[in-house]
Amino acid sequence: MPSPTGDQFLLTPGPLTTAKETKEAMLHDWGSRDSGFIDANTRVRRRIVEIANADDTHVCVPVQGSGTFAVEATLGTLIPRYEKSLILINGAYGHRMAKILSVIGREYVTLETPEDTPPDPEEVDEILDGDDEISHVIMVHCETTSGILNPIREVSEITKVRQLSLIIDSMSAFGAIKLDATEIHFDAVMASSNKCLEGVPGVGFSIIRKSVLETCEGNAHSLSLDLYDQWQAMEKTKQWRFTPPTHVIVAFDKALDIYDAEGGPEGRAERYSNNCRILVDGMREMGFETLLPDHLQAPIIVTFRMPTDLNFDFQTFYDGLKDKDYVIYPGKLTVTDSFRVGCIGQLGEIEMLGALEAVRQTMSEMGVQTGAPAAA
Amino acid sequence: MPSPTGDQFLLTPGPLTTAKETKEAMLHDWGSRDSGFIDANTRVRRRIVEIANADDTHVCVPVQGSGTFAVEATLGTLIPRYEKSLILINGAYGHRMAKILSVIGREYVTLETPEDTPPDPEEVDEILDGDDEISHVIMVHCETTSGILNPIREVSEITKVRQLSLIIDSMSAFGAIKLDATEIHFDAVMASSNKCLEGVPGVGFSIIRKSVLETCEGNAHSLSLDLYDQWQAMEKTKQWRFTPPTHVIVAFDKALDIYDAEGGPEGRAERYSNNCRILVDGMREMGFETLLPDHLQAPIIVTFRMPTDLNFDFQTFYDGLKDKDYVIYPGKLTVTDSFRVGCIGQLGEIEMLGALEAVRQTMSEMGVQTGAPAAA
Repeated sequence: MPSPTGDQFLLTPGPLTTAKETKEAMLHDWGSRDSGFIDANTRVRRRIVEIANADDTHVCVPVQGSGTFAVEATLGTLIPRYEKSLILINGAYGHRMAKILSVIGREYVTLETPEDTPPDPEEVDEILDGDDEISHVIMVHCETTSGILNPIREVSEITKVRQLSLIIDSMSAFGAIKLDATEIHFDAVMASSNKCLEGVPGVGFSIIRKSVLETCEGNAHSLSLDLYDQWQAMEKTKQWRFTPPTHVIVAFDKALDIYDAEGGPEGRAERYSNNCRILVDGMREMGFETLLPDHLQAPIIVTFRMPTDLNFDFQTFYDGLKDKDYVIYPGKLTVTDSFRVGCIGQLGEIEMLGALEAVRQTMSEMGVQTGAPAAA
Repeated sequence: MPSPTGDQFLLTPGPLTTAKETKEAMLHDWGSRDSGFIDANTRVRRRIVEIANADDTHVCVPVQGSGTFAVEATLGTLIPRYEKSLILINGAYGHRMAKILSVIGREYVTLETPEDTPPDPEEVDEILDGDDEISHVIMVHCETTSGILNPIREVSEITKVRQLSLIIDSMSAFGAIKLDATEIHFDAVMASSNKCLEGVPGVGFSIIRKSVLETCEGNAHSLSLDLYDQWQAMEKTKQWRFTPPTHVIVAFDKALDIYDAEGGPEGRAERYSNNCRILVDGMREMGFETLLPDHLQAPIIVTFRMPTDLNFDFQTFYDGLKDKDYVIYPGKLTVTDSFRVGCIGQLGEIEMLGALEAVRQTMSEMGVQTGAPAAA
């Protein structure tokens, strides 16, 4: 079953498959001062804050570029020079935040756990007990390296009691895994247009506690990535400081219409959870093993261990799936050979079943033995 | 004559009117590791270097975001900490580069001239004579504040003899005003997808001398904006370090097809020069005055002095034109009341004549006396 646009289905961490209507929104040119564009931009900002149930406390500050731009902009804007952060790391995106702090010159310590292991909140508490210089705790919501769900609620309870600032990289989870500002006390959450909200790539955003952002003038290490400056300008003029990616933003607005029509966070979570269940069940039936136990698995992207069958060759597997219009992703684990299959983007039951059938066929082409259904 | 997509014509410094085919290229989703996407990205990089006739000496490093992101990334990557720059300023974009250097902590001095006055190369020479700590000279090619063309050739002769690094912000000129690396000795030229190359906004680039970029490891103040790192990764893998704005880049590739078909730099320059001539002649016939004499006017954007007729009200004028589907731009001059009309984007003779007719009608609606054609 080919996609409506003849494109391949992207079962990856992004760029993702987006809806036809989202892409069609880009068939127009908009001036950056045009009231239609300004309205779209304002709607996007408002709806993002609403998704986090943060209307009363936080603001949405968009920033151009990939998710990493939004992460760097948030860390640079919110963490004053000479303050110290604790970064919880269990994958590449935790490491990337450490790299950002190194480059921009902010002090940090880390708590690193294996890629299949969430940080232990008690250990976080102990580190904070032993180091009263730490002002910010930084963590990844769903670490795309493995697909693991990290304990943001438990950590937020600790940082709230200690009156520390919690910054969450929710890039690959936001909009599909509940993150309610009235339940989880955070100062900033970063995400992007092109993950669970199913816009096209090119813009990220940060949801920042207004009372904190108000104190952040002059913190940033960069003009382009200064979210205080960006926020101030956007509040005053409703416009971007610099030429915005108009087409990407108008597409994002359309993607949020589709998101709302699907039932918002609950609807999106339901579809992705269903995608994930179909995928994991089907792959296990064929003998594949997931890296993570189900209770640690976010319904975003699933890491499978590489089969040990000598006939299995990953590049052949990847190419065979791609020939059948399903694009998966290589693994990023440091500890074990693996590959990843995404559950997000404009994909549903039909596409997930199609992907499973493509896996089955490709395994058969390679002469790799699979479980019962293929042998039947 | 409405546009084919029903959009308004953007006679602005950007975002601009783009071709239908350019926007239609965004109707597909591409994986960032997809060979089709990688080919498009490689073609874009190659063609940009060719436009500058810099194949043998320079490389094109793209960066997400508006032009300012590309400017900040280039300055941060190329200028080592503790080195001193001279910035030539005659408008907002020169000032912006000074602001960037302040924020990222690089020392600089400035030579500022009025907005209608190019820097005097002799004066540049004298400043360099008197300060041997200056290692970089930074200037704007066409300063969009006024539309003035600055003397990059003359300055490049000075910096070449002195073996200093010349960095040129050619944001609004690149691709339409000749800039040949074999004639003008520069270390970097920054521009964007969405000016004279007529792509959609969302990606910028820098054309950097390879022998210089090779020495720039560790200079950058930012991970996202580190063009050394971006270049190294792209050379190794042909992929972007972080999720690229796939749709924007594929559209850029299509825009460059159209650019090539129009005859490249010469063809584009011819159309824009014709647009500019029609606009300036027509506006002068109606009694408008340009800020700049013709020999300083780049065929990019024209600044007109605000008429003194008491019946003329800029907001009414702007809205009247917009109602007729022509969007112009407010002035940005600090010295005199003005407005700006762009000559770039997917616009030709028909649209420029249409804009003039819309001006004539709007002036008449306001009861402002115009020159002969309106009175006839």
